[in-house]
Amino acid sequence: MAAHYDALHTALPEGRIYYAIKANPAPAILRLLEKRGASFDAASLEEVRMCLAAGATPDRISYGNTLKKASAIREAHALGITLFVFDSVEELEKIAANAPGARVFCRLAVENEGADWPLSRKFGTTLANARTLMLRAQELGLDPYGLSFHVGSQQTGIAAYQHAIARAAALYHDLRAEGLNLRMLNLGGGFPTRYRENIPSVQDFADAIQKALAEHFPEAAPEILLEPGRYMVGQAGVVSSEVILVSRRGGAATDPRWVYLDIGRFGGLAETEGEAIRYTFRTPHDDRNGTRSPCVVAGPSCDGVDILYEKNRIPLPDSLQCGDRIELLATGAYVSTYCSTGFNGFPPLTEHYI
Amino acid sequence: MAAHYDALHTALPEGRIYYAIKANPAPAILRLLEKRGASFDAASLEEVRMCLAAGATPDRISYGNTLKKASAIREAHALGITLFVFDSVEELEKIAANAPGARVFCRLAVENEGADWPLSRKFGTTLANARTLMLRAQELGLDPYGLSFHVGSQQTGIAAYQHAIARAAALYHDLRAEGLNLRMLNLGGGFPTRYRENIPSVQDFADAIQKALAEHFPEAAPEILLEPGRYMVGQAGVVSSEVILVSRRGGAATDPRWVYLDIGRFGGLAETEGEAIRYTFRTPHDDRNGTRSPCVVAGPSCDGVDILYEKNRIPLPDSLQCGDRIELLATGAYVSTYCSTGFNGFPPLTEHYI
Repeated sequence: MAAHYDALHTALPEGRIYYAIKANPAPAILRLLEKRGASFDAASLEEVRMCLAAGATPDRISYGNTLKKASAIREAHALGITLFVFDSVEELEKIAANAPGARVFCRLAVENEGADWPLSRKFGTTLANARTLMLRAQELGLDPYGLSFHVGSQQTGIAAYQHAIARAAALYHDLRAEGLNLRMLNLGGGFPTRYRENIPSVQDFADAIQKALAEHFPEAAPEILLEPGRYMVGQAGVVSSEVILVSRRGGAATDPRWVYLDIGRFGGLAETEGEAIRYTFRTPHDDRNGTRSPCVVAGPSCDGVDILYEKNRIPLPDSLQCGDRIELLATGAYVSTYCSTGFNGFPPLTEHYI
Repeated sequence: MAAHYDALHTALPEGRIYYAIKANPAPAILRLLEKRGASFDAASLEEVRMCLAAGATPDRISYGNTLKKASAIREAHALGITLFVFDSVEELEKIAANAPGARVFCRLAVENEGADWPLSRKFGTTLANARTLMLRAQELGLDPYGLSFHVGSQQTGIAAYQHAIARAAALYHDLRAEGLNLRMLNLGGGFPTRYRENIPSVQDFADAIQKALAEHFPEAAPEILLEPGRYMVGQAGVVSSEVILVSRRGGAATDPRWVYLDIGRFGGLAETEGEAIRYTFRTPHDDRNGTRSPCVVAGPSCDGVDILYEKNRIPLPDSLQCGDRIELLATGAYVSTYCSTGFNGFPPLTEHYI
């Protein structure tokens, strides 16, 4: 994880890294990143408190969820947080009332094409509305600090950043010309981690981003914020699971094999919904030269939607059997906290930080 | 909940009720049902232990998940459980090895048409394979006790039970003719609870089931098991939620309103996936004669899929605003345990049993 932090920091030194805590809020991770100098993107008051507990000072914390209770804004502000996102006038007014004078940035809706886990339906607003809202922020006595966007999580197309920067830059310059003291552009997260397919390197993303910034901010570039989550912690985790059952449900040798694991969509692998995130499997049989065949992989619960991969079957060794341990690689991000409290009686995932 | 138990018991006295604990395993619920004489359908060893802790004797517990670790079968057997389901030869052999002599029943795949939450892709086997497996059960020294099926959860069509009973009865008689001492038919769960639309009454289901049983078992009817979950506990719960934000994301008065709640798909409302289960909302403005307009309803997290209803918008009062409390009715089943341990830092749902 530290190596990923350093690689991003080296490739894009002009970007201040706000780790998206939601990807994995384990105290050991937050402490490590705090020591390395990272800032933090918190999704809730609870996450703000986790950052503070890990040693981060309030000036290194952004309250980065466009959805905040008034009480949470007030409490975060009382804890020293002065940076808040919004994408609606209603949220802006809540911030003005509960965190007077705070720095605010408006989230723009941008294309999420190329992202395996899109976010654009739920968040962000139009350029025209963002313009109105930023002017309104000034009127409300807030500090109209900048703009943000999110190209979608597990974004594997570098062009997405270029398009989004172009879009944001136009409004940025417009608002500066209107007299607002805008000085920040938040590029959000979305940087991918490697699951099964190759992905562009962090240097590829940095090159594209720097090119776009040079093009659209030919004079002074704004402060740049980055909110990586999955990129930072994805490779740092592995799930160790037990094979509960390998069966051919119709009984015939031509029926597909179903492999049932003791972890499923409600045990942490929520991002397999729609087979969006495709994890890699390691089995005890991988070193042998045995045959493989495509398997449906499913979770342990009595729930019919608790199927991980059915359309995209996984080629697993024919020698795989009940009781084998199987590893799911690159499961450091967006696994542990999605886990249900006790669906079907199964206890939550046990976590170990080494 | 007790009234629902009594209504089902009265309408179908020949059916022994095995409450599907997974719908809501709260100790208060298990104790109430235990006192009323219910039996229990457990999805895991942990759920077996919960039933025992609530006072149920092992003969009132069925281990009803076709997916069981060998170690879990062994431990459950050691705790006195002697009733196990299976739908594959692999599972059958695990049961034979770890719970020798146990009563077993085979789960058949049946049509789930008419169910809002289908289960048929993941569970159950063909009639032909079930026949082979039941004969094999006998060879393995197990007691081939019966057959089961599941018509799908929130099944609102009474014909589904009739079709499934016809299907199971054919195999039942066939296996009896083969000399097996089959004596049980488990009709599974699926009985609906009322969300927004009217549903058939429990008496409607009972009438259809009794008719089908009379038709297909003209001589001695088998023992009948029922596994209601949602039906039993759905109406017994209400979620109290706070409105975090009401906004028109594009800023224009013609844009749809988005209502963001402090509970979403990862806070317990997992069954809104695909907008399958459609809860009813109660707001503080319902008594007034205000206007309503269709709203998108979403959860509080930074996750793009955390949207409850977008295609099927909810008509909510135009006076609804941030800070209002809103109630989600009939949320007693399949809510509390789906809740994530702490996604986005939000703590799990607090439960109160009155």
